[in-house]
Order: sequence, then C-alpha cells, then structure tokens
Amino acid sequence: MRYTHAYVGIQVRDLERSLRFYRDLLGMEVLRREAVPETGGEWVELKSPGSPHLLELNWYPEGSRHFRGPYRNGDELDHLAFECEDAAAAYRELVGKGAGPALEPFLEGGTQLAYISDPDGIWIELYSER
Amino acid sequence: MRYTHAYVGIQVRDLERSLRFYRDLLGMEVLRREAVPETGGEWVELKSPGSPHLLELNWYPEGSRHFRGPYRNGDELDHLAFECEDAAAAYRELVGKGAGPALEPFLEGGTQLAYISDPDGIWIELYSER
Repeated sequence: MRYTHAYVGIQVRDLERSLRFYRDLLGMEVLRREAVPETGGEWVELKSPGSPHLLELNWYPEGSRHFRGPYRNGDELDHLAFECEDAAAAYRELVGKGAGPALEPFLEGGTQLAYISDPDGIWIELYSER
Repeated sequence: MRYTHAYVGIQVRDLERSLRFYRDLLGMEVLRREAVPETGGEWVELKSPGSPHLLELNWYPEGSRHFRGPYRNGDELDHLAFECEDAAAAYRELVGKGAGPALEPFLEGGTQLAYISDPDGIWIELYSER
C-alpha cells in the first residue's frame, strides 16, 4: 500500500499555553480546532503562512484513552525546525518574549542555529542561512 | 520576525533500522543524508512521494553534544500521521512485516484509524477516510 506522511502531532499539557507559543509567538495560523468526543480531548491544526507543513497540538484530559499518566519528557522528538531571517536575533526576540532558552546561537557550516524550548520542553530549532 | 515551520526531526537510536522502517516499509524517499562533523552524528531527510512534509532522522553518537544519556521514551511526540487507502488493511500489512502493533484499527467519526510503532517506540498513525 502507499503511505503519505501528512502531519506531525505533538501532545501538549495546556492547549491555550501552547497556542500562545505556536500561534502568538511563532506566528502559525490555526486551520482547524476540534473536540474529540471519543477521548474528551481537543486538537488544533496549525501551519506557518507560506509553509505546507502541518502541526497538530493534541490535548487529552486525564483518564482518557490516550492519557498515559504523568507527562514525561523523552528523546523521540529531537526538534521542530523553523526557518527565519536571522536565527541569532530570533533567539533574542523569542527568549525576550518568554520562550525558554535551550542552546545559544552557534554556526554549523554556513547555517546559523539556535534552540529555544516550547512550553512542554520540546526543542525548537531556529535556523537561517548566512 | 517571520517564522516558517520547515520540518520535524526525530532522534533515532539505529539509523539503518529506522531507514528500513521509514524508507522500506512506509515507502519514504531519502532526499539527503549528511554526516555532522560537529557532533559526529548523521541525519537523513525523507519525504513520502507526493507529500511536501519533510521528516529528519537524527542519529547522535554517545558522548556528542546532543546525546543526552540513556534513551528515554516520553510524551512530547504524540504521533506521526500517514494517510493511506485502508488503515485497517495497512495495519495488518505493516504489523505482518514486523512493525510494532500499538492500537488496533478503530473508527473515529468517518475516519478509520490504526496505530503502529516505529523501532524507537514512536506511534505512527495510519488513517483513511471511509
């Protein structure tokens, strides 16, 4: 059978807090927001203007089928990458607005990189080509 | 500043094992593969034919800057979603070929869903519209 990668879903502990990060700080647009009667949860689909990539925020209430107990940070998700004009300036801007600092700006080859963290501890890569 | 969501990177413990899963089982194409002198690691960029979504597999050797000790499964990454023609048949096909079973096929609204797991324990959503 043919399989088509369609989007990535992350789990968030506080939907409004994550919307403030992805929508208000990083400028993503909310495409859809739906309650899921089967789990009692809710999801929000977002994309950056001009990008085809879809990001889904999933929130599950305690006790639902998908809720697996105390939230635990792990290693599966390495980072969500966002391109911008100047990663070093972006790092200062976003940390100044309350994003968590993760890795200060550095160069890797010709790419300027910096990492911040989202409200659940996910690393957000900011990159710009020099 | 304007931020554009560009791709999602996951961390893998065994790059060849993950390539057998994403490339050989799920049919993704390898677009780029590069060693990273700064970390001693390697990354591979993949996409499904016909999809704009990029998935990056990141492998870090023990002791590198990004290696954070024993691999630990967590809750940040809820799932990677793949659309297909028949999610129930896909579940049987992929589990038959060695993918880990996660959630047997079920209906949610008009959508057929099933979950398998990748070699590192990441949930892969298979979905098809009925």
